[in-house]
Amino acid sequence: MIRTHTAGSLREEHAGQQVTLAGWVARRRDHGGVVFIDLRDASGSAQVVFREEDHAHDLRAEYCVKVVGKVRSRPEGNDNPDLPTGAIEVVAERVEVLSESAPLPFPIEGNVGVSEEARLKYRYLDIRRQQVATAMRTRSKATYLTNEVMHDLGFVYVETPTLTRSTPEGARDFLVPVRLQPGNWYALPQSPQLFKQLLQVAGLERYYQLAKCYRDEDLRADRQPEFTQIDVEMSFVDQEDVIEVGEKLIGRLWKEIAGYELPTPLPRMTYADAMSRYGSDKPDLRFGQELVEMTGYFAGTSFRVFQADYVGAVVMPGGGSQTRKELDAWQEWARSRGAKGLAYVLVQEDGTLGGPVAKNLSAEELSGLAAKVGAEPGDAIFFAAGARNAARDLLGAARLEIGRRCGLIDESLWSFLWVVDAPMFEEDGEGGWTAVHHPFTGPKPEWADNFQDHPGEALAYAYDMVCNGMEIGGGSIRIHRAEMQQRVFDVLGISKEEAESKFGFLLEAFKYGPPPHGGIAYGWDRICMLLSGGDSIRDVIAFPKTASGFDPLTGAPTPITSDQRKEAGVDAQPKAEA
Amino acid sequence: MIRTHTAGSLREEHAGQQVTLAGWVARRRDHGGVVFIDLRDASGSAQVVFREEDHAHDLRAEYCVKVVGKVRSRPEGNDNPDLPTGAIEVVAERVEVLSESAPLPFPIEGNVGVSEEARLKYRYLDIRRQQVATAMRTRSKATYLTNEVMHDLGFVYVETPTLTRSTPEGARDFLVPVRLQPGNWYALPQSPQLFKQLLQVAGLERYYQLAKCYRDEDLRADRQPEFTQIDVEMSFVDQEDVIEVGEKLIGRLWKEIAGYELPTPLPRMTYADAMSRYGSDKPDLRFGQELVEMTGYFAGTSFRVFQADYVGAVVMPGGGSQTRKELDAWQEWARSRGAKGLAYVLVQEDGTLGGPVAKNLSAEELSGLAAKVGAEPGDAIFFAAGARNAARDLLGAARLEIGRRCGLIDESLWSFLWVVDAPMFEEDGEGGWTAVHHPFTGPKPEWADNFQDHPGEALAYAYDMVCNGMEIGGGSIRIHRAEMQQRVFDVLGISKEEAESKFGFLLEAFKYGPPPHGGIAYGWDRICMLLSGGDSIRDVIAFPKTASGFDPLTGAPTPITSDQRKEAGVDAQPKAEA
Repeated sequence: MIRTHTAGSLREEHAGQQVTLAGWVARRRDHGGVVFIDLRDASGSAQVVFREEDHAHDLRAEYCVKVVGKVRSRPEGNDNPDLPTGAIEVVAERVEVLSESAPLPFPIEGNVGVSEEARLKYRYLDIRRQQVATAMRTRSKATYLTNEVMHDLGFVYVETPTLTRSTPEGARDFLVPVRLQPGNWYALPQSPQLFKQLLQVAGLERYYQLAKCYRDEDLRADRQPEFTQIDVEMSFVDQEDVIEVGEKLIGRLWKEIAGYELPTPLPRMTYADAMSRYGSDKPDLRFGQELVEMTGYFAGTSFRVFQADYVGAVVMPGGGSQTRKELDAWQEWARSRGAKGLAYVLVQEDGTLGGPVAKNLSAEELSGLAAKVGAEPGDAIFFAAGARNAARDLLGAARLEIGRRCGLIDESLWSFLWVVDAPMFEEDGEGGWTAVHHPFTGPKPEWADNFQDHPGEALAYAYDMVCNGMEIGGGSIRIHRAEMQQRVFDVLGISKEEAESKFGFLLEAFKYGPPPHGGIAYGWDRICMLLSGGDSIRDVIAFPKTASGFDPLTGAPTPITSDQRKEAGVDAQPKAEA
Repeated sequence: MIRTHTAGSLREEHAGQQVTLAGWVARRRDHGGVVFIDLRDASGSAQVVFREEDHAHDLRAEYCVKVVGKVRSRPEGNDNPDLPTGAIEVVAERVEVLSESAPLPFPIEGNVGVSEEARLKYRYLDIRRQQVATAMRTRSKATYLTNEVMHDLGFVYVETPTLTRSTPEGARDFLVPVRLQPGNWYALPQSPQLFKQLLQVAGLERYYQLAKCYRDEDLRADRQPEFTQIDVEMSFVDQEDVIEVGEKLIGRLWKEIAGYELPTPLPRMTYADAMSRYGSDKPDLRFGQELVEMTGYFAGTSFRVFQADYVGAVVMPGGGSQTRKELDAWQEWARSRGAKGLAYVLVQEDGTLGGPVAKNLSAEELSGLAAKVGAEPGDAIFFAAGARNAARDLLGAARLEIGRRCGLIDESLWSFLWVVDAPMFEEDGEGGWTAVHHPFTGPKPEWADNFQDHPGEALAYAYDMVCNGMEIGGGSIRIHRAEMQQRVFDVLGISKEEAESKFGFLLEAFKYGPPPHGGIAYGWDRICMLLSGGDSIRDVIAFPKTASGFDPLTGAPTPITSDQRKEAGVDAQPKAEA
């Protein structure tokens, strides 16, 4: 090592020792001939004193330097108890510039706001900033703890392939031309789902992996084309077993990194309850403002808007005093989500009800309304009416918006729960059914024999872990019997040909004594974001891309040359099969 | 869990207990009304006794079953001390078939030879075979130990991107079209080299990763288009620091998995020595038969073939009695490697020298020859003459072949060493120079100022770890100064434009106080192969591909449809830059 000590490790006990440090010039203060420099390295920083201005003459911000000097206690009154190294300083005897730094695009020290574009373009400087470096280290620690927990629980780490089979149905697959087999392409996997199930057929029984997954998705704010999941699959298990492993894993992470003791077993909520009470399959329980179903209340209403399959309400505390402009903004907000608007009633301080909707309601409807929804004078009541799912979605989103705007969310809280008993299928809008999870998700045991007769009611043996309103893990007990799998395909309208093309090799494997199995996948970027207190998964990804998949640092993706096209076989015709 | 106990964990102490097991029907023996079945699960297997033939009637090989029964000690004389569960058996009371198995393409139990094609196509059955399952578990354990060692040494685990920048010069890059930016492509990384260096500029100081790497290479027997390396990079270090970490890591793996204590510090050999003594930069030191340079010996020879820049020899013990056919086969072997042939002299039992070459040598040359090369009566001496590197390559390969054919290699030995001081550059055959490692490899300190004046002699600050004749890790201290990097580019004839296009963002990063740094990458597939005693890296990859990149299990790669081409933007023109 070029150094004898790390800067951040120096303490009073080192006083008198000669040390060699290496790191970066973080801050510099000139005091009439004496120059103080904070020397930063990965361990922290230490104050270095140059008694002759000459030696420090050329040292500018972020120069990489080696300093030989003697540690001494700081003069009386100059110590800084807020810094681990605040009791000492190093009196420089020799300094060597290991490399210089050009003027910086943004300062490394201090909490100056920097545009995300600049941060990503100069990510190697961004990571020098303490908060970002800490996020990288937190993620590393979380990865290590995960390996420890899973190892202790007897899981086998298996790397599954990332150059896999492309299928015509696999929309959003990234494709990769294969030079050695011109005209043929791999696909990058959206998840190791099929492989982890094959590993159960293979008898490994307990599999996990820190798995890189790929999705060539439409622009979405906090998505990345490549992302990481902690992928888990187990044989001979029930839902309880997968949940127990998950609580051990997440419990360990939160305990060691966030200092929070997970209250296990975590509460569970059915999907049906989550949707009716929170308008979300990933409810944020850090605040109330539950949805109130008003369908029965308005069963006989003459107000046309409320003559709907579903009417629901959510209360905004103190929302009654919103300005016209603020109320209009809510309409805009609702329209941006694809709704027609957001009906509202304002509860005046005297208890009377105002706003345009109130005029359309009968005296009887008005009289019990505030009590029914739990609104107080000064509150606003928002309504959504229409198809049940769409109306609840809107109210659920309004509830979150209310929580944010009214400061109802205690950011210091952790709210974990499992959402269970999701439906197996949902209508696809074209008279058919689509899988809520994926087509290998098994039915709850009580639906094993007859889910196909009641696809709208059948419940899946699935479970999602939710934290603070975010889904951080999702899984299910899988189907392992061919005849049950066939019934699911039949409901989904998946033809034999399509099934064969997409996952024929899994169906083939299931002919050879597949064990009952199930698993889960945890969204690793999101979990690390929560653990490190970030707002975006980009905060915990070393080299993230923008929402459009652009990397401001490397300039990827780029056009390719015609030579590259030719070399990679992009335009080759596959050989006809023999 | 569906079971109460794992089969492999049952012992005498469980006698009398009722247990529920779940696993696969491994072996079945029918003995007049009584049926014995070995029930296998991930933990091992246990003997299950069915007293009524009826219950076991339908149980065929690899059926997945659940068995409820009572553990008892095996009757006197029936215990099997070779099996951990050999003292007990389970008397079945109830059995439930969890899933049936079709007739198997190959048996799971026993050591029946199976074609590799069948193994890969039914990999989920292959992994049920004990040896393959053990290899998977060994790899998992090695991965865990690696994480533990690197964590204890203060390394930060960072995931670097796998959708990166494609550059026209990046031959063998896999390319990926980007739907959201039609006409633009990512490349899959051949290694995280640039990113791990950026992480040093970023100040993380100690980085490691289990990194997936990609290379769209020509057919080679034991290569995979995707492979894994343990990628390591450190700041403020010297060669000694990187080597020390490597010895700790490899030492821990071999100690805990192979039960072998690494003799640290490992021996080191210069590249020059390795080439001259073994004709290889990854010498297998498990046997002797060193190359003998004969250039001086034949300096005045009249034999035209030996009037060459280099003449060398290697001895084949006992090779003097080879048949004409065997000796012809050596010629064929040499020609298949691109040589003209392999000159030889046979040492007769009476000490006289035979074979066609001997006739061309003078009496004086003949008289001292056997002593000079260390050949005994009955040996053969092989020669190569010509350009130094090519001739040594041939002799090095002949040496290995001799080792194999003569059984000189003790397969129970572990032979580790570091090969150091490789040349920075080698001639590219077109009058220029190419980098032996990569263009970021620094010179040894003594060559720092003048490597550009002696590119054929300058030594790189590089080190390869070699085990049993295989390179298992390679790394170097990197260049971190722009002016030195420029001198390397100049020697390599890399233009400003090419440097900018390939790694402009790294050069840009190096403007901002880059620390001195270096690292290494270990070939993880190869290390796991060695640890698990396999012959091929395919033995330690869960779902490997064939040499041509084909996956017999999934059928990948496949042709894509014109819809897929369109959707993925394969044929889109990139937008002109603004």
